[in-house]
This record gives sequence, structure tokens and C-alpha cells, in this order.
Amino acid sequence: MTVLYKSDPVRGAIWAERFAELAPDIPFRIWPDIGDPAAIRYLIAWQPDDLAVTLPNLEAVFSVGAGVDQLDLTRIPTHLPVVRMIEPGIVDGMIEYVTEAVLAIHRDLFDYALQQQARLWKPMPLRPAASRRVGVLGLGVLGTAVLQRLRLFGFACAGWSRSPRDIEGVECFAGEATFDAFLARTDVLVCLLPLTDATRGLLDQRVFAGLPKGASIVHVGRGPQLVASDLLAALDCGQIHSAVIDVTDPEPLPPDHPLWTQPRVRITPHIASATCAVTAADAVLENLRRHQAGEPMIGEIDRARGY
Amino acid sequence: MTVLYKSDPVRGAIWAERFAELAPDIPFRIWPDIGDPAAIRYLIAWQPDDLAVTLPNLEAVFSVGAGVDQLDLTRIPTHLPVVRMIEPGIVDGMIEYVTEAVLAIHRDLFDYALQQQARLWKPMPLRPAASRRVGVLGLGVLGTAVLQRLRLFGFACAGWSRSPRDIEGVECFAGEATFDAFLARTDVLVCLLPLTDATRGLLDQRVFAGLPKGASIVHVGRGPQLVASDLLAALDCGQIHSAVIDVTDPEPLPPDHPLWTQPRVRITPHIASATCAVTAADAVLENLRRHQAGEPMIGEIDRARGY
Repeated sequence: MTVLYKSDPVRGAIWAERFAELAPDIPFRIWPDIGDPAAIRYLIAWQPDDLAVTLPNLEAVFSVGAGVDQLDLTRIPTHLPVVRMIEPGIVDGMIEYVTEAVLAIHRDLFDYALQQQARLWKPMPLRPAASRRVGVLGLGVLGTAVLQRLRLFGFACAGWSRSPRDIEGVECFAGEATFDAFLARTDVLVCLLPLTDATRGLLDQRVFAGLPKGASIVHVGRGPQLVASDLLAALDCGQIHSAVIDVTDPEPLPPDHPLWTQPRVRITPHIASATCAVTAADAVLENLRRHQAGEPMIGEIDRARGY
Repeated sequence: MTVLYKSDPVRGAIWAERFAELAPDIPFRIWPDIGDPAAIRYLIAWQPDDLAVTLPNLEAVFSVGAGVDQLDLTRIPTHLPVVRMIEPGIVDGMIEYVTEAVLAIHRDLFDYALQQQARLWKPMPLRPAASRRVGVLGLGVLGTAVLQRLRLFGFACAGWSRSPRDIEGVECFAGEATFDAFLARTDVLVCLLPLTDATRGLLDQRVFAGLPKGASIVHVGRGPQLVASDLLAALDCGQIHSAVIDVTDPEPLPPDHPLWTQPRVRITPHIASATCAVTAADAVLENLRRHQAGEPMIGEIDRARGY
């Protein structure tokens, strides 16, 4: 049961090393050196192109990333399970990035940076975390982990998802009907939704207007979820105070894009979180064991939902 | 047993309200409306001036701040206990500020800010937190609380103090003899020391040279502990990569001071943490109860050490 890897070759070498160490009986090949196509049972890829169609004995496709929106599902036969990446490296990175962003907003660091540029020493009143309402869109593994860390700081935490969830210490909203109420109580909105037809363009004028005046945005979902022109307008009129943006459309963000130069916008180049090759290999090995044993794999997507 | 408060009058009103609510039998006066000097048993102050000498029946002096370096101890008779402020508001604020600063350094946000100025989209490799060595100088209530939060992110945590401490998951160094070893293993140095003759000017060229090349500084102790010219030189030559500085000498930092304009220095105007009037009143009330009962008060300083 050969495994084929098709993604960044530098990271591929780390994957191969980990497989050799923990599962020396499983042949691990790095594309384009695929060997006998008929031997390949599992494909680990960022973008498989047509491999999922042409490999005759494939049994499952694993995304190397937390999302699967980069996959063209029409080119993956419907009998093949598609599995997104859930591994501790991705989770830890996202906890770090979002915690920093929410604390920076909470502690007025955008304003203090502007004061520093003006060489102005002017303390502002310190608000207790309990009065700062953080709301996370998307309550999967990442959203849940982020909220559990933010809770420790005493923030008033809520989350929204399509289907009902239950997270200790977090006010959970579910479904379209609760969306406006969720927005109305949210000072810092964190987007951790997957990219689907339903979330494309979601962060638009209507959402910004539904937040309390002076709210802030932390966007760590996917670039096409944000309508940048609406955000720029909301920043201009003060409806949105500040934004931390890690994903853009397109990526890289073109040098002439107006988001780069907004004084209260921080842009980072899609680095909030990254798959850690070592722990990702461990996660796939665990899923191979589960698949062989007929158990459900961790992170298998629902093709109808798209995540 | 009248209590006299001498500090910011706006906060004083919140103190008075809390005392009226929880201890209506204790008269609470706000300077300069002191009433009968002979009735005053307890003084809560930022700077008492000569009150500790002139009030005839004073029994203790409480600082409204976490430090006591602003007090002139020669003007406080030696029989009077001097108590620093330990209350949850100060602790929470410091945890927030230092966590944000360490995460910002860990996630290369100084470099990404410079890239944003250049409109450059260039991801850098993500280091796991376990490979980032954080070291906290000063293991009192604040240093300990900060380390306990940082541990949750998986940082390699250490602390240094004059006398031996034991904090779960933290490598504790004690005494002068271990100071160089502590510096040599520290990528992010957090200063939370009290200001004393021994710590004045401590953060100097020798300390910066003792850290690994490219280390960073988070200074949340007291301004006079930092030799700013030495830091500027260490930043210029790359020995120190970046610094987050909340306390300066003098405060406010003068507009022409070169620290304001360093690209990898963040200045905030002594806002890392502030006494929360409500919980501070609670802390003093608990200490009054202890004092009346002959129990040791929380935060009583050792005059010989100065903290």
C-alpha cells in the first residue's frame, strides 16, 4: 500500500523521514517519482490535479492543509474519501496568531502604534477583558481551540456555527436565525470559517454594519470570504476600528492594493498557521490505521457541505 | 479607624464607593479632606509626601501601585509596615500585555510590519513555540503568573530571581551565579524586576551581550533599569532584534528620544498593567482585616531589600 505525496518537496522530505521512522513497511513516494501507479493506495496532496482520476487503485485523498477549498472535488471520484488535515501544529499556530491579534486589539495597540509615530505619550483607560466581547465564526477544531485559550484571559466569548455546538464557558449561537444577534454582541470578530459557496463574500457591508460601532476584525479564514472594498469603507467611516488580515484575495496581495496602507490594518502573508510536517505525518499514519481497521478517519469531509 | 486615600481623585471615588459598600463602618477620606489627623490609622497613597511622618496614629502605608519605588522610605517611620499592591487587576493586565508581546515577537510581527510597509508578501518559516526560549527576570506574583500563562503556549520557559523559587514547568535560576547561564538560554527576555539599587541600570550592554544574538526584550519593570543607549547600540548591530518597552526614563519619554523611531522598538506609555480600583479596595480591606487580627498582610515589603 504505497503512499504518494504531491506538495512542497522540502516538506516532503520531512514526511518521508517520519514515515521511514514510524512505518518503514509503507512505501512513501514523492511526486513526480510515482513508481508503479497501480501500487498507490493513498494520495497526500495540496492539489492532486488529475491524479485522483488516473491512479487506478486509490483509496483516499488527504489534503496537506486544514482547508480543502483548493481541491477541485469534481476531479476526485465520489467513492474516494477526502480528508482535511487536523494536526496539533496547525492548531497551535492558530491559537498563537488569534490570541496575539485579539490581545493587540484589546490593549489598543493599533492606537498606541499611531501615537508612537507621533511621539505622543498618552495612556488610555484599560478595559477589563470581561467587558470585551470576542466572537468566533466557525466552531470546528480550530475555532473551538482558539476560544478555549481566549477564555483563560477572561474575555466574554461567543461562537457561531451552522449546527449547534456546546463549548464550556462560550455562548454558542447556531444557524442563520441567530447570526444577527451574534454580530450585535461582538466587539472582536474572528473569522475561522471554511471557504464554501455559502461563505464566499460573507464578510461584507451587511456584516460590518451588524457589529457594534468601533468593532474589529481578525480574518484567518480564506481570502475570498472578505469583500475588501466594504471593509475599507467601514474603516473609513469608523464603523470598523481595526483589522488583522492574514488571508487575501488574491494571494499574494498585489503591491498596489489599498489594504496594505491602511493605518489600522495589519496584513500578514497567510502565516497564521501552517501544517507541521512531522505531526501531519503522524496524523495521516493514524488515519491510515483507522482506514485499514474500518474505523472512521479524523477530518473526513462531507462533500455536500464542502468541508 | 479612618482610612486616608491620597492619589488620583477619580479612582478615589471608586475606592470610596467600594469601601461604603463592603465596610460602611470604616470612614474613608480622600486627601486633602483629611478630617481629624489623629483618627487616621491607614494611608493608601501613590506618594505620601510627609503624611506618614505627620499623622500621629498611623499604623500602615499601602502603595496604590504594584511597586514601591515611588515611595521615599526615609519619610516613612520604620515602625510602619509598607504594603505593595497585589490585586487581580494588576496581574491580569500584566499577563495580557506580556503574552501579547511574546507572541508578537515569536510570530515575527516586527518583521511582517516592515514587510507591510514595503508592500511585500513574503512568508517566513514558522518556528514551534517549544523552540522559543522565554526568560522572565523576577519571580514574584507577576512574573510567576506571566510564566504560567506562557507555558500553555508551549514556550520553553525559565525564570530568574535572587532567591530560589519552584514553578511547575519552568526552569528556575536563582542568584547572581546563575545569571549568565539564564541569559545564555534566553531568546525573549522579560524584565519584571522591582526597581532597587541592585536593578538600576541592570539592562545594559553586558546583559544584551550575554543573550543569544538576535534575542528580544520585553521591558515591563521600571524605566531606570534600562540603559537606553546600550539598547540602541545592541539594536543597531543586530545583537538585539527587537524590543517592547512599556517603561522609560524619564516618563513621559521626550519627543526627541531616539527610542521612539526605532523600527523594531514598540513604545507604550506605561500601560502594561494598572491597579483596578475595585479589586484594589478589596485587597486593602482584606489586609485591614489581617492587620486587625494580627495576621501577616499580603504584599508587606522588606525594607532592607526595598521590595
